[in-house]
Amino acid sequence: MIELVLVGIGTGNPDHLTRQAIKALNAADLVMIPRKGQNKADLAELRRAICAEVITNPATRLVEFDLPVRDLATPDYRARVDDWHDAIAAVWKETILAELGSKGSAALLVWGDASLYDSTLRIADRVARVLPLTVRVIPGITSLQALTAAHAMPLNEIGAPFIVTTGRRLREEGWPKGVDTLAVMLDGECSFQSIATEGVTIWWGAYVGMAEEITLSGPLDKTSQRIIETRAEARDRHGWIMDIYILRRA
Amino acid sequence: MIELVLVGIGTGNPDHLTRQAIKALNAADLVMIPRKGQNKADLAELRRAICAEVITNPATRLVEFDLPVRDLATPDYRARVDDWHDAIAAVWKETILAELGSKGSAALLVWGDASLYDSTLRIADRVARVLPLTVRVIPGITSLQALTAAHAMPLNEIGAPFIVTTGRRLREEGWPKGVDTLAVMLDGECSFQSIATEGVTIWWGAYVGMAEEITLSGPLDKTSQRIIETRAEARDRHGWIMDIYILRRA
Repeated sequence: MIELVLVGIGTGNPDHLTRQAIKALNAADLVMIPRKGQNKADLAELRRAICAEVITNPATRLVEFDLPVRDLATPDYRARVDDWHDAIAAVWKETILAELGSKGSAALLVWGDASLYDSTLRIADRVARVLPLTVRVIPGITSLQALTAAHAMPLNEIGAPFIVTTGRRLREEGWPKGVDTLAVMLDGECSFQSIATEGVTIWWGAYVGMAEEITLSGPLDKTSQRIIETRAEARDRHGWIMDIYILRRA
Repeated sequence: MIELVLVGIGTGNPDHLTRQAIKALNAADLVMIPRKGQNKADLAELRRAICAEVITNPATRLVEFDLPVRDLATPDYRARVDDWHDAIAAVWKETILAELGSKGSAALLVWGDASLYDSTLRIADRVARVLPLTVRVIPGITSLQALTAAHAMPLNEIGAPFIVTTGRRLREEGWPKGVDTLAVMLDGECSFQSIATEGVTIWWGAYVGMAEEITLSGPLDKTSQRIIETRAEARDRHGWIMDIYILRRA
């Protein structure tokens, strides 16, 4: 039997790792690190650095694998993602069989937490269909928490709900009904430009929790342009960007 | 100048602490532990145990303070909470002045994470109005993440939004518009009983992440009664309960 352990590592700060995550990495026979060629956004170097810093068990082996690329020829977004997940599952399966055979534990470092806009659990389910596999999840600090920590702010108003959504949804559907607080993830297009700014405050952050962290906040109408420019400049400088924001209306 | 550090400690499992949390506790001059008399739900013993396990700096002092009680004579819920937060802020201020004077760092252990249905940041703001104080937040594992980890499940469907809300809102307003996934917190009344069960799945957990963890999941109509009974029995046995759940409709 194979155990696959999905270890939430937080947002790139090695100090985000929990004691549970460190124990799980040291208990694994194998840690699998994805590589996307020369793409800095694969953060393979950061994963290697985290492993070097926290893994003290000499029996834990690191193995790298090349992450398949999405086939942009597949026109349908959902089908493209499904095919891509199938391809990644196939590589995980091969790597596990080659390195562990039929017994042992393999760990994957999951950016943030496996529950939040992350495909690791869905890919693991695919592998579990073709290998005898149990899946265990170690929770990690999410970018949403790193953002609220950086701004020292609560996410919800007292007793009030909030919605977590994507940039695409915000652009296509506007401000959701029934909530005054939105957290927006997976937004490569500064979709806050698509909504009415009146009475809206934004709290934005990029590389939250990391040494490169940048935060900006203020009334949306006065802050929007500064975020767009700061984001573009930071992405050029670092070669990649991850950002997230909260919108709240009065 | 006083620094107040709000340290997210996760959901009661000392292994939820991050390296950052452990460093922050060891760097603090003072760690303040709230007590609610003989009330087990204050979890003071757990906080003491966590401190004993992770604080190695002999210069870090622990001090306990009695948490004021809510004045149930105040009829308005919001006013009652406001008064209570004022009273807690006054005790924090006294404790900081008595123990640190005008300089040093004080830490508070925050259950879960300070951003999520937690009053610590709001109370800290009150103290900052009367003392020269900076507030720093260390993110922690939330009960929502401990729940999804226990069920090895993603919180969102692919590209889809989800709402985080309270038991009271679910009872009073029903299923929110525009989302198929709800995470429900602060629910002492099993408010999932108030909604139509057709096509709805529930993933429930109590004491998530702790040794006492209990999880149940399934179609809401077939699982509801079992959760109600399990919850009541566990609360009687432990003298307190914290639980949380996710609802998703097909």
